[in-house]
Amino acid sequence: MKKSFGAQTMAFPNPVWCIGSYDAQDRPNLMTVAWGGICCSKPPAVTISLRKATYTYGNLMVRKAYTVNVPSVKYVTAADYVGIASGKKTDKFKTTGLTPVKSDLVDAPYVAEFPMVIECKVIHTFEIGLHTQFIGEIVDVKVEQDALDDAGQPDMAKIAPIVYGSQVQTYHRVAEEIGKAFSVGKAFR
Amino acid sequence: MKKSFGAQTMAFPNPVWCIGSYDAQDRPNLMTVAWGGICCSKPPAVTISLRKATYTYGNLMVRKAYTVNVPSVKYVTAADYVGIASGKKTDKFKTTGLTPVKSDLVDAPYVAEFPMVIECKVIHTFEIGLHTQFIGEIVDVKVEQDALDDAGQPDMAKIAPIVYGSQVQTYHRVAEEIGKAFSVGKAFR
Repeated sequence: MKKSFGAQTMAFPNPVWCIGSYDAQDRPNLMTVAWGGICCSKPPAVTISLRKATYTYGNLMVRKAYTVNVPSVKYVTAADYVGIASGKKTDKFKTTGLTPVKSDLVDAPYVAEFPMVIECKVIHTFEIGLHTQFIGEIVDVKVEQDALDDAGQPDMAKIAPIVYGSQVQTYHRVAEEIGKAFSVGKAFR
Repeated sequence: MKKSFGAQTMAFPNPVWCIGSYDAQDRPNLMTVAWGGICCSKPPAVTISLRKATYTYGNLMVRKAYTVNVPSVKYVTAADYVGIASGKKTDKFKTTGLTPVKSDLVDAPYVAEFPMVIECKVIHTFEIGLHTQFIGEIVDVKVEQDALDDAGQPDMAKIAPIVYGSQVQTYHRVAEEIGKAFSVGKAFR
């Protein structure tokens, strides 16, 4: 028997991603989003949704670029803070002690300390309602050397991304691997 | 030092969601997606991306509705299978033993056995490239009674959603809570 919760933005799991951008004065800003995900394979693209009221919204409209920075669980306090504070009034890099690095590929900064960054150029915006979608073509993905496995691939356990439970407002870590995609399901063939 | 992986759909974490839909002959179908996420708070909306070649793409174009079913880790084999097989040739509910339930609210079936379902009406489609985005207004979210906590709210540990690591193609479980959102970050104020 299922309990009805009504029309809510309740979904598990959601990502916790910190969006890097520059404002018109070249000041770096960082903002956390949970409304987002990969949205296309060719071109490789990721979508994030922003309210017009956010400082990041204005930055992306002007600079047409952003970075998706994946915080490790050890940065959960900083990731939560940059989702609460506004870049209009606060230098969030300075407050958190995080280091902005100017991307060589897109007109946006990324976070030196975080293990993974996706560098994006805005190719579409799409109004839905309270939120506007920004669809970013992925130009490069960079991962810290110490977050790679023995084969040189990104290691989920070492990157240690954060999962967000919407509505219940909880952060979680990701645990062990439970199977290979496009593989375990072959048992049903 | 970060290693560059190029323009890839590499992002952590991604959801594992099974999309329920009817075809023109009222046959229920189920397909797994990892390209998706909540995309708006008002109206509450969730986006999923589909290739035109999928059976689900045609179903959503005709029926204008879908359900986002959240599989528990114990259903990882079925969730992987419905992402591999095509509904053109296969009755995936029958093969997996899962039970389609007709939604009272939208023109789509949901999975009886899965702990959580988001019922959606398609309000926009948006072409990006290989994938088309379907933006669904969330009409209701339903959660199994035995997946609720003592306060009657969805419990991440009991729902036990699956996380997908794109490019590396691994499935993972979600572990313990590491903090409250809009709360732990106040330490930086």
